[in-house]
Amino acid sequence: MYIARNEGFKIHALSFRYGQQHTRELESAKVIARDAGAANHVTISLDPRLFEGSALTGSEAVPENRSLAEMAGEIPPTYVPARNTVFLSMALAYAEVIDSRDIYIGVNAIDYSGYPDCRPEYIMAFQKLAELATRDAVEGNPARIHAPLLNMTKAEIIGRGIELGVDYTRTLSCYNPDSDGKACGKCDACILRLKGFKENGMNDPASYSKGSFRDNV
Amino acid sequence: MYIARNEGFKIHALSFRYGQQHTRELESAKVIARDAGAANHVTISLDPRLFEGSALTGSEAVPENRSLAEMAGEIPPTYVPARNTVFLSMALAYAEVIDSRDIYIGVNAIDYSGYPDCRPEYIMAFQKLAELATRDAVEGNPARIHAPLLNMTKAEIIGRGIELGVDYTRTLSCYNPDSDGKACGKCDACILRLKGFKENGMNDPASYSKGSFRDNV
Repeated sequence: MYIARNEGFKIHALSFRYGQQHTRELESAKVIARDAGAANHVTISLDPRLFEGSALTGSEAVPENRSLAEMAGEIPPTYVPARNTVFLSMALAYAEVIDSRDIYIGVNAIDYSGYPDCRPEYIMAFQKLAELATRDAVEGNPARIHAPLLNMTKAEIIGRGIELGVDYTRTLSCYNPDSDGKACGKCDACILRLKGFKENGMNDPASYSKGSFRDNV
Repeated sequence: MYIARNEGFKIHALSFRYGQQHTRELESAKVIARDAGAANHVTISLDPRLFEGSALTGSEAVPENRSLAEMAGEIPPTYVPARNTVFLSMALAYAEVIDSRDIYIGVNAIDYSGYPDCRPEYIMAFQKLAELATRDAVEGNPARIHAPLLNMTKAEIIGRGIELGVDYTRTLSCYNPDSDGKACGKCDACILRLKGFKENGMNDPASYSKGSFRDNV
């Protein structure tokens, strides 16, 4: 969002409630959209029956304290069926409704992602689809899918956010935050985020639960 | 659905409430899914804010009594933003959840369709996307998108349905049915359906409102 804003776009933010256990991220999204001066922020509720069978939607525990080697080279249990395809398709519809052409998505293909729908070839395929799917496309103005984080390391992402004025105390990456919104420090998302801050020579200013992995970083 | 059943598949039917004015079609879908012996039928409710700006979602009147020439060669006012992309993406998620590989969609590219997301090149692009989007795809079992009506005329579609035992008194194609579920006989969908029956040398057995176009067919 901050990158899109920096590129001169007016922001219409979209978030999705898809049955994720960590719905606390939707409150954070609202706060950050306001921080960034978004023109509006819409949270779309999706039928959770479409997305069962993921650790994020509660079918099994979110893995904890995995090493980078354990995260590498496989699809993680936090994979959610076709999630980014659903998110992008809804963004495509909404963009046409509000007469926007530019869709930003924060997917990241490297640093142990493992998600099929975070890869460059996947984003390219959605771009091709978008060029055929809509009235705007037929009329010569297809949507452009932007994935500026796609090929950045987690350290680069965090560094870029700092340059752009992101207040990381307001952000939540954790898959399993506590009821106060404190991050667990143990899930893959926390571990990779903490690694990213460390590689920038910084401490993560966000709040972590007591006894979390962070104490050991 | 009847074609998929005839090809040996167990049916998991999906319908969508997306803000269409003619929600009566969802009741018909439920009846027909039961007729066809579907294993289950799920109706997904979508946020109507994603699909504004179409005659089908109430932003303008559904056109009536258009000639075939008027329907030809342009995107109709009943186009709904990115609708089939949203439908297919949700089917892709749901298929992975229920461990299915075969997704059927009843799009039809000919006979004055004009919808960008009913064209063969669009369906091919979604197939390519599906081959990259999911865990199943990465594991060598991508979803297959079937669009058996794609290149059939409306007359052929109706003829095929009759062969397969579809009870057309139960079906609803109309964009603007009355409160009893009777078809208007005036919208594009009615006109093309009636033309399809006529080309089969048959009368449409469905119920139409009094004074509708049907009286003139």
